This record gives sequence, C-alpha cells and structure tokens, in this order.
Amino acid sequence: MINNFTYNTPTKLVFGSGVIKDLPNVLKEYGNNVLLTYGGGSIKKIGLYDEIKTLLKDFNVYELNGIEPNPKYDPSVLDGARLCRENNIDVILAVGGGSVIDCSKAIAVCALYDGEGWDIISGKVKAKGAIPLVDVLTLAATGSEYDSGAVISNTAINDKRGYGSKYIFPKVSFLDPRYTFSVSKWQTACGTADAINHILEQFFQETPSIINDGLMISVIKSLMANVSVALNEPDNYEARSELMYACSLACNGILSNGCSSSGWPMHSIEHALSAFFDITHGAGLAIITPHWMEEILSDRTLNRFMVLGNELFNIRVNTKEDAKLVIKAFYDFFKGIGISMHLKDLGVDSNKIEEMATHILENDSTVGNYMYVNLDKDALIRILKASM
Amino acid sequence: MINNFTYNTPTKLVFGSGVIKDLPNVLKEYGNNVLLTYGGGSIKKIGLYDEIKTLLKDFNVYELNGIEPNPKYDPSVLDGARLCRENNIDVILAVGGGSVIDCSKAIAVCALYDGEGWDIISGKVKAKGAIPLVDVLTLAATGSEYDSGAVISNTAINDKRGYGSKYIFPKVSFLDPRYTFSVSKWQTACGTADAINHILEQFFQETPSIINDGLMISVIKSLMANVSVALNEPDNYEARSELMYACSLACNGILSNGCSSSGWPMHSIEHALSAFFDITHGAGLAIITPHWMEEILSDRTLNRFMVLGNELFNIRVNTKEDAKLVIKAFYDFFKGIGISMHLKDLGVDSNKIEEMATHILENDSTVGNYMYVNLDKDALIRILKASM
Repeated sequence: MINNFTYNTPTKLVFGSGVIKDLPNVLKEYGNNVLLTYGGGSIKKIGLYDEIKTLLKDFNVYELNGIEPNPKYDPSVLDGARLCRENNIDVILAVGGGSVIDCSKAIAVCALYDGEGWDIISGKVKAKGAIPLVDVLTLAATGSEYDSGAVISNTAINDKRGYGSKYIFPKVSFLDPRYTFSVSKWQTACGTADAINHILEQFFQETPSIINDGLMISVIKSLMANVSVALNEPDNYEARSELMYACSLACNGILSNGCSSSGWPMHSIEHALSAFFDITHGAGLAIITPHWMEEILSDRTLNRFMVLGNELFNIRVNTKEDAKLVIKAFYDFFKGIGISMHLKDLGVDSNKIEEMATHILENDSTVGNYMYVNLDKDALIRILKASM
Repeated sequence: MINNFTYNTPTKLVFGSGVIKDLPNVLKEYGNNVLLTYGGGSIKKIGLYDEIKTLLKDFNVYELNGIEPNPKYDPSVLDGARLCRENNIDVILAVGGGSVIDCSKAIAVCALYDGEGWDIISGKVKAKGAIPLVDVLTLAATGSEYDSGAVISNTAINDKRGYGSKYIFPKVSFLDPRYTFSVSKWQTACGTADAINHILEQFFQETPSIINDGLMISVIKSLMANVSVALNEPDNYEARSELMYACSLACNGILSNGCSSSGWPMHSIEHALSAFFDITHGAGLAIITPHWMEEILSDRTLNRFMVLGNELFNIRVNTKEDAKLVIKAFYDFFKGIGISMHLKDLGVDSNKIEEMATHILENDSTVGNYMYVNLDKDALIRILKASM
C-alpha cells in the first residue's frame, strides 16, 4: 500500500570520479562571492582544499573553517551567518561531511534572518528563504547532501535539534567517491551505521509495500556488503561508490514514499546523547538500535523482523524468539564493523540517563506517540541502560 | 559499481486519494490562463473533467481534446502550440496518461518556438524554454509524469521520436490511484508491460551494483504482483497505488543512476512498429521483449538472466539453456496478463519488416552500438520475424 505522500527533491546530484571540474560553472550561476565552509582540515590533507582554491581563482572566496562534528550554533552557525552578511555572500560552498553541510544549511537560513537564528532552528520562526548552497561531499554518512534537513547543537542549553525546510536543499551536490578513500575505519563504520539506521527508522511502519520494502532492503544490503569491503580496502572505488550513493538515498525519503512511519525515535534518543556527551552520531545510533528493537518487539512488529531476518540474515522469523535472533544479528553486525556496542565506551555517564530521558520527551513529541510503542520515560530509561 | 552520473528530477509528486484539491493552489503560482489537454473523453466518464472544471472556476480555461494514443505532431502538437500562443497560456494542465502528457510536453516547447516545431522534437533545434506543465495522471504506464521525455509521432513521415529536455519535467504531478480504477484490463496489462520493459532496458548493463539491481528488481516484483491483483479487482486501491508509483519510478532514472546502459534498443524497435502501424506501445514492447532477449543472450549477458531468474521466477541460471527458461517465463507472464504475444494480432504486416528494420537503424544510432550486441539489420529482422 502506498499511502498519500508529497515528494520533491530539487537537488542535482553530480556523481563520480573527477566531477568537481564543473564546480566553477555551477557556482557562477549564483554569483561571485562564495563562502567556503569546512571542518578540521582533512580536506587540506587530501589535497581537496588546494584543488578547490585553484578552481575558484576567479571568485571572491571567504572562509569559515573548524566546523565541529555535531556542529554548534555558537560559534559556527553564528560566525557563518555574520560572514555572509558582511561579505554579501551569493552562494555557500560546503566541503565536508554531514556536519559541515548541516552547519552550512543553518548558516544559509540564519544569514537572511535579522533576529536570533536559534528561533529558526528551533522552529519558533519560519524561514523565508536561504542563501543557495552547493556542496562537495567527503564522507558517506548522513545524507545531508540530498535532503532538506540539518541537525544543530546548542551547547548552551544542551539541545540538539533537527531542522527542516525546503529552502535548504542543496542546489547541487558533488559526490566523488575518491574523496572518501582516506576516511578512517571508525568514521566509515559510523557513517554506514548512520545510513542503516536511517533506513530502519523508515522501515518500521505499518503498511508495507513490495516497492518500499524492496527499495529499503536493497540499500541496507548494499551498505552491509560494501562497508566490509571498504574497511579492508579503503581505496576500493566500487565499494566506496556504492556506500556514497547508498547514504544519499538512505535519508532522502525516496525509499519510503507512501510509508506510514510516525517518527524517528532512535534519532531522538541519539540526539540527546550527542547533546549531553558529544558522541559520534552513527556510533550512538548503532548502540541504541538493538535495544530499541527489543523494546518495540511485539506481535505488531513481528512482520518487520520477518522481512529483515529473511532478506538480510537468512533467519526465518515466526516467533518473537526468532526475532531476537535478528536483533542479535544487527548487534553482531555493528560490533563486527568495529563499533563498541557500549555507550560507556564513548564517555556517556549513566548518572545522566534520567535527565536525558526527560530531555528526549520534552524535545520530540513523536517519541511519545510512536506507532508501535508509546516510548514513555521508563521505556527510554530501559533502552539507555541496556545500551550502557 | 556506481558509474559517473548526473541526476536531477525537479518534479513534485503529489500522490494519493483526494490530492487534486490542491490543484488550484498549484496552478495559480503560474498564472490564470490554463490550457487543459486531454484525450478521448475517459476523463468525462469518470467525472474527473467536471471535478477539474469546478476546481478551476476562477481560471480562464482553454481546451485541447482528442489527443491520440501515440500522440501526433499534426494535428495535436501544432493545435496545442497555436492555442497557447493565441491565448497567452501561462500553464498547461495535462489530464490523462502518457500520450496526453507527452503531447503536452511537446506543446510546451513548441509554443515558445517560432519556427517549425518538428525541428525541436527531432533534435535539429534546441529548445530555450517551455510553458510550465502540471498534470493529473489517469493511467499507470509510461512514467511521463516523472521524467523529461516525450514520444511524438509524425505520421506524414512515418516517424516516432523520443524527445528529451530539462524544460519539460512537469512542475507538479498529481497521482490519485482511484483515477485508474476504470482503466481496462488491456490498458492495465499494457501499462504494466511498458513499465517492466523500461526497467529491463536499464537492467541489461555491464556494471551491476547491489543497489541498482535491488532497486530495479523491487519495482519489477511489485509490478508483476500487483498487476495480477488489479486485473482481478480493478478497484483494489493497494494494488493500483503500487502500480501507479512503480510506473513513475520505472522511467525516471532513479533506479539506474550509475548504470552503464548504452541505449533503449527495445524502445527503438517498438517506436518503428507504432510509427508504421499505430499499435499500443506496451503491447509492442511485451511482444518484442523475449525475442530481443534471445538475440542478446550470450556469456556476457548470462549474469543478468541469473539475477532475473533467481529474483523473479525462482529459476537458477547457470547456462544459456537455463536463461532460455527465464525468457520463456517473461513470455508466459506477458501472455498471462492478457497480451497476445504476436504482432500480427495487433495488425502488423510482415511485409513491412525490412522497411521497419531500415527505419530503426536510420533513426536511432544507439541500436547499432548497443553494448551487448550490435543489432544490425539482420538481427532486427530476426527479432521482428520471431515476434510476428
């Protein structure tokens, strides 16, 4: 069954080896003043920074660097928005992974708003437009290069928010898999876990269709198979190209058009973890996943475990006991790609569990109204404790 | 392996029961003068014409009706373009199936060109823009509602051309599966065969990936399963909704981004058949499919039959003899949904086979350079003869 949906992704994907040569042509459509945004300098190590500076020799390039993982409203978004205003920026060029792109999306809307930017990010005020955004992706993970969302942390108030607006779809995303050859095993594993979790959030829904189940399972299969190759051979182009494309599809919505999913509960939980302890998003999601699955396992969800078991792990599921084998298989998979499956190993302090559970319920109403299980505070505490 | 690709589909899909109520809001973004285009009157039978006229009571609505299956440059495209110019049309509203939408796309570009419109359709002159197009789909088949292509016949010169331009993506496509409840068994079967063929054209390629194989197989599976339901229960919403969405995905490119396909040879063959004998496109494709497969079956293509056999028909393929069982399974499937598998039953005259083979090679250079088999005149004649 395909339920009612609206779908529109205007972003142009330019994918493959060497595609960046078209960057100047793309940027000049928007103007001459470019804000180049990036993170901790990995783009300098791989030579991408120099390549871009050479390509942009005829543009006025301003820079915002040092954008953090779990990008921060203060200083990064505020600094970027100020740079845009001061320099009449025509287009933002984000070069990096999901954090850099998310931060740049927030900059793009906040720069055109005179008031306090957080009012936009937190949904209090609606954006009326954004500076055009183009990106060059260097990490296969969040899918931000192909969606209209951004996740921003406000450390002053321990908050991490998902923000969405049609204005922040990138205009063009350049995806060259070679830029991910140097991504560490840890980041490769966490990026893949992030994308798998994105699909699982969409997969647990009550009106399955052959199309949607098939699309989602295909992309999970690709992620699982190719991450193993990429971990062993970091410069395997085939594996890196599938991972990169799979991650873009995973968060974009195209895999679940017409699904009845009512929320992204694992993300709500993880956002609290990252807000309190600044952990790597994909790792947090991987650790939570099996314990969230245990919590929502019921007769209503059994069919979902049946499909996952059959298609991904060759496990036939007839009973809830069988489904626990599927949950165990996910645990083993994430562990097998190198993610410690304990939050305490990432520095999470179990004394904060109750506070985080309260925070989750206060910040995302969908968690308490999830279609399968109304995750109350006790349920959240159980999931977090089991994940420690 | 994901090969280099560029992908951009700006069309907004508005899918589901009752979505048409938003039509006035969508149209008024473009202006007040609307050219309503439709076919033989089925939209009047199902009440859709009246529904739309009521919704558009505040617009100036001009009409072009009687658009043919295999839509004709003369009179339909020419008449439509003239109506646009005479009435300062702001937006074209196509209501119907692929023929109506294709014709409207051609009208949209030809209306803005002062010279002979066929020069644009045949690729001699490049379009510089198009009148915005919105559509309401009433037939699950060609996928024209979600792509940038149009196929137009010029009967004066026995030509049928595929035309593509970024300007002719529909702005918004309204897809309400209920409008397909009254589609005949014949059209339901032919529409499904069309979509399956679209995917097969993309599936036969030399650099398979887990993602692309999975996406394509998922949509074929959905089409095969749901067409049987819809043929038995024409008003089964679940089946009609999957068919409608599957057809939109089948031709849009999203299923084969990064594939290495070098042409759509079956379409080139069918276009000649329709140009000479005006047969139903999907039926022609279904009939050709098994015989085209026989022609290209080789060690190089065996892997493709392996995946199709395993995933769709539970046939294990190790040898070319096994692959013939898969070809037979496609033949039986198309026959089983009610398509006579002989071109002569559609009125094709075998005396024209040689002339059609010459026409195909003259009109589509990709047929002669197809990656697997360089389809020369003899090969085309073999395929057409076997299809009679």
